[in-house]
Amino acid sequence: SYSVFYKYQPIGLVRKYFGEKIGLYFAWLGLYTQMLIPASLVGVIVFLYGCATVDDNIPSMEICHPRNNITMCPLCDRACSYWKLKEACGTARASHLFDNPATVFFSIFMALWAAMFMEHWKRRQMRLNYEWDLTGFEEEEVSALQLESCIPLLFTEKEKLTCRDRLPAYMTNVVMMLLMIGVTFAIVFGVILYRISTKTALHMSNNPTTRSNVRLTVKTTAAIINLVVILILDEVYGAVARWLTVLEVPKTDKSFEERLIFKTFILKFVNAFTPIIYIAFFRGRLVGRPGSYLYVFESYRMEECAHGGCLMELCIQLSITMLGKQLIQNNLFEIGIPKLKKLIRYIKSKRRSFQEEEREKKLQRYETDHFLEPFAGLTPEYMEMIIQFGFVTLFVASFPLAPLFALLNNIIEIRLDAKKFVAELRRPVAARAKDIGIWYNLLRAVAKVAVIINAFVISFTSDFIPRLVYQYMYSPDGSMHGFVNHTLSYFNVSNFQDGKEPMDPQHQVEMCRYKDYREPPWSNTPYVISKEFWAVLAARLAFVIVFQNVVMLMSDIVDWLIPDIPKDISLQIHKEKILMVELFMKEEQGKIQFIDSMIPCGGKEKRNNHAPIARSRSIPHTHSHTHANNF
Amino acid sequence: SYSVFYKYQPIGLVRKYFGEKIGLYFAWLGLYTQMLIPASLVGVIVFLYGCATVDDNIPSMEICHPRNNITMCPLCDRACSYWKLKEACGTARASHLFDNPATVFFSIFMALWAAMFMEHWKRRQMRLNYEWDLTGFEEEEVSALQLESCIPLLFTEKEKLTCRDRLPAYMTNVVMMLLMIGVTFAIVFGVILYRISTKTALHMSNNPTTRSNVRLTVKTTAAIINLVVILILDEVYGAVARWLTVLEVPKTDKSFEERLIFKTFILKFVNAFTPIIYIAFFRGRLVGRPGSYLYVFESYRMEECAHGGCLMELCIQLSITMLGKQLIQNNLFEIGIPKLKKLIRYIKSKRRSFQEEEREKKLQRYETDHFLEPFAGLTPEYMEMIIQFGFVTLFVASFPLAPLFALLNNIIEIRLDAKKFVAELRRPVAARAKDIGIWYNLLRAVAKVAVIINAFVISFTSDFIPRLVYQYMYSPDGSMHGFVNHTLSYFNVSNFQDGKEPMDPQHQVEMCRYKDYREPPWSNTPYVISKEFWAVLAARLAFVIVFQNVVMLMSDIVDWLIPDIPKDISLQIHKEKILMVELFMKEEQGKIQFIDSMIPCGGKEKRNNHAPIARSRSIPHTHSHTHANNF
Repeated sequence: SYSVFYKYQPIGLVRKYFGEKIGLYFAWLGLYTQMLIPASLVGVIVFLYGCATVDDNIPSMEICHPRNNITMCPLCDRACSYWKLKEACGTARASHLFDNPATVFFSIFMALWAAMFMEHWKRRQMRLNYEWDLTGFEEEEVSALQLESCIPLLFTEKEKLTCRDRLPAYMTNVVMMLLMIGVTFAIVFGVILYRISTKTALHMSNNPTTRSNVRLTVKTTAAIINLVVILILDEVYGAVARWLTVLEVPKTDKSFEERLIFKTFILKFVNAFTPIIYIAFFRGRLVGRPGSYLYVFESYRMEECAHGGCLMELCIQLSITMLGKQLIQNNLFEIGIPKLKKLIRYIKSKRRSFQEEEREKKLQRYETDHFLEPFAGLTPEYMEMIIQFGFVTLFVASFPLAPLFALLNNIIEIRLDAKKFVAELRRPVAARAKDIGIWYNLLRAVAKVAVIINAFVISFTSDFIPRLVYQYMYSPDGSMHGFVNHTLSYFNVSNFQDGKEPMDPQHQVEMCRYKDYREPPWSNTPYVISKEFWAVLAARLAFVIVFQNVVMLMSDIVDWLIPDIPKDISLQIHKEKILMVELFMKEEQGKIQFIDSMIPCGGKEKRNNHAPIARSRSIPHTHSHTHANNF
Repeated sequence: SYSVFYKYQPIGLVRKYFGEKIGLYFAWLGLYTQMLIPASLVGVIVFLYGCATVDDNIPSMEICHPRNNITMCPLCDRACSYWKLKEACGTARASHLFDNPATVFFSIFMALWAAMFMEHWKRRQMRLNYEWDLTGFEEEEVSALQLESCIPLLFTEKEKLTCRDRLPAYMTNVVMMLLMIGVTFAIVFGVILYRISTKTALHMSNNPTTRSNVRLTVKTTAAIINLVVILILDEVYGAVARWLTVLEVPKTDKSFEERLIFKTFILKFVNAFTPIIYIAFFRGRLVGRPGSYLYVFESYRMEECAHGGCLMELCIQLSITMLGKQLIQNNLFEIGIPKLKKLIRYIKSKRRSFQEEEREKKLQRYETDHFLEPFAGLTPEYMEMIIQFGFVTLFVASFPLAPLFALLNNIIEIRLDAKKFVAELRRPVAARAKDIGIWYNLLRAVAKVAVIINAFVISFTSDFIPRLVYQYMYSPDGSMHGFVNHTLSYFNVSNFQDGKEPMDPQHQVEMCRYKDYREPPWSNTPYVISKEFWAVLAARLAFVIVFQNVVMLMSDIVDWLIPDIPKDISLQIHKEKILMVELFMKEEQGKIQFIDSMIPCGGKEKRNNHAPIARSRSIPHTHSHTHANNF
């Protein structure tokens, strides 16, 4: 129920009803949601810090200053006119919310948060294993045996496949994966082209209201197209990954599942993050310069970022994708489609004769349950969460509210999933599991990639490094005054290529400015990349190196400081072991006495036979824990 | 014996005689030495490639060209004169041996080699564990029990120490560690000062023969001082680390050992590598420029690298430290000192009366053994090897022959150690161990640091990146011609500070050249760092990022591709488990029948009591291995 969202899930009961595998999923989801609370708190504080300091921010103040009279170069060929930097005031102020020194701190915090989350999950898993082992001795042994013998059954009829038999399948796999990733790239590129071409077309039209709505229209439609494409491709990729994994003929059920998950993960991840990576790292960077812009297909100029820098656009794209995906895919698809299917089944059953309906009413509980959707496995649930984890960690430097969005989604999600499992789906076959398997490795991989991506977002997408460089290398008085002027290069309008200059005859402009570090027209080498550019680039790269290594070191330290097994559990295991051995010794002694006393009844040789085997079994227990200790 | 150096050590026998702990050490040393063979082979090939291409190397050809007439700025104030670049011909040719594109390949290879070594060691360890468990069931259980109960004994008399009690000790620890590291830095700085001041003093002298021997004298004495300091500090640091660990009062023997090792490792590592890191990354970088050199204590100019770049000096320092440490510390100390001590004991015993001597002759073998040195633990052996592993991996980019040196040392070492353990020391108490403990983590840490250090050596110490940048950005014809000229800046000799210009009146020079990227005297901003500098710096930093991430990714892939448990072992474990369970089931059934048949004899309740406990013990075996699989 929604009214108890603040309470923990009853993991013990979940596990009793659904088995360990689903129990672990809910335990993991619970821990993740719980860990999101501090993250979103800090995220909100960082955001509020941005809001509070927006009026002290010198660069945006300079842009908004009424006496600021900087004329900027047009943003598109011919149709666009020169514009005043003042117009960018709003965006500049807004982008300060996401681009202030606190976000650097926040992305370090989130990297450590991810490391903490991993460690806490290891501990929680260990604790659950311990608790669930305690209550499940008998069942466990049997099911462990069953599992053991089950696994190799799947393909026993087939002969053993050699490497050469497998080669074509592997090749197909690699080629198809690359193809699919290529398709994603192509689609993202297509959306970019759509954006560029419609923008140009709309600019060309003479209707002034259309033109003023250009930006909004193009952005909205492009974002929606992106979202729809992501949603459709997600379904396609799920099917492709399944087909490819069947081709591979893995040896066991477990390996089948792992390979399937791995492929699906890669495809869905690329699908979800390609547009965002494009905006973060490529948009506005490959535009050329006034007088020699870069053109796609020789007619479309590459798009520039809006006045406030690309960070703002990244934020918008991130929030649209995240909210859209969560609302549509998770809540609509996950709840709506099962309900719809149920409805269809219900309608179908209506068509049957009344007799059947009569009979149906008398059905047992387990018979009505058969009308529910079958259980499709936990993969989609985990996948959804890991993609969300990606949004929370990968671009957190540019969007500190991501953890909050994720938290809100998960509070609903955890109840929805529970409700779905209990009421909407057939009760799944209880499966045992010791850990969350490959998902843990994928989480680790995402957390590792997140460090690098955040380093690049801070140093390349945001203006953090150029500001620092200006303040310590170029500023005459050590303040940020003059930073805006420093980042803008000069362009002599007489150097426009023929046919590219703005048609608007109103302005009499000699020089216009554009955001880049290039030599001014009056230097010996006009429009060549300037020394400042290389200095800023070096500072940016140095920051990436420092950030990545510092954060990795700190994560390793977190990893090393938090022991994998909670102390009370390891103590209890230790005590139990001693108790067990003592009990065993007594037992053994008792048996010896017992048998000795029964020698007339026979069975002397039993004792010698039994003792070493039973003893040998007590050893692995010692090992399994010393083992876990070392990792 | 030396004559069988090509054979493997008989690990099984070693373990039977000395126990698992020493067995594992020799197994590890054996695997390490074995793995060094391909590494040193590739290293030699890389070195030979350097030798073969030395005549095709355009930059060194340009330096050696007879018509080359570049006048370089003097290397010291007043006493030194201008010199011709031609004089650096020899060093330039020699440094090509260690600074060619193949070394980049080699350092990637060595990073992967380190990852492979780790993985292979995990497998070997798993195999040894399996094999040794098989033959040691009974003993194992007992000793495992003993160990378990032994560990908490050490400090049971003392009351439990609270955090507050421990705080002063921890503080002392941190402060002392920092102090010790500070001492190392101070000594390295002292050696630098020695070098600078003696060089200046010798330059001042009017004797031409002294002056011509300046370089050689200074270098040799400095290197020897460095080596002696390292050797002395090594012993001091060992004692300090022990004292600090005693202060900490760790809870168990194992934790005592780990903390001691950790501290000793950090101190010895810093001690061994500080001079090398200074040469690799700082020497020749903080010199200022002609006309405004940097001075230490206002009179000593910071030292520059020799004509061929700092890489050559790094190579010399590396080989001296490595050879010196290995020869003196390992072979002389390790063999000599035990022999010396034995001699002293022998002399002491001589002084005793004849009676005692007579009695001694009748001593049993174990009594004469008592005269041998006591066993000091494996820590020094491992420590020596891990420092060597550091030399092999950390700076391999600048010294491809390091693996070969290490291999030669180890082939001797493995026999020497064995001989020492067998003949020179008392037979140590056999100790059990499942793994090499903290050493594995330290090896991993060294391998991780190695990636970063190699990235920096390639990009900052060698001229690899400047060459690439020149070739693709500045070269008029895409070749390396003109590279030497490009890296040298101009200096107008009239800009020398008063009293700093060379006294030598022979040369009539207007411009001299120095190795740096600075604006020429005729530019608007003379002697300011130029655009080329920033471009090269950005390229260097970009290379570090790319190198580090690519190598880390490849190491992760190696880690992931090689399973931790060898396939045959995991199969065998699986089979054994099934056999064991079957046997156990039969046993259980037999017992039930047996007891049932004996109901008249009593003992019905025994059965219900015994079964669940024995069963519970068979479970952990299953777990311990699924567990290991996941890590």
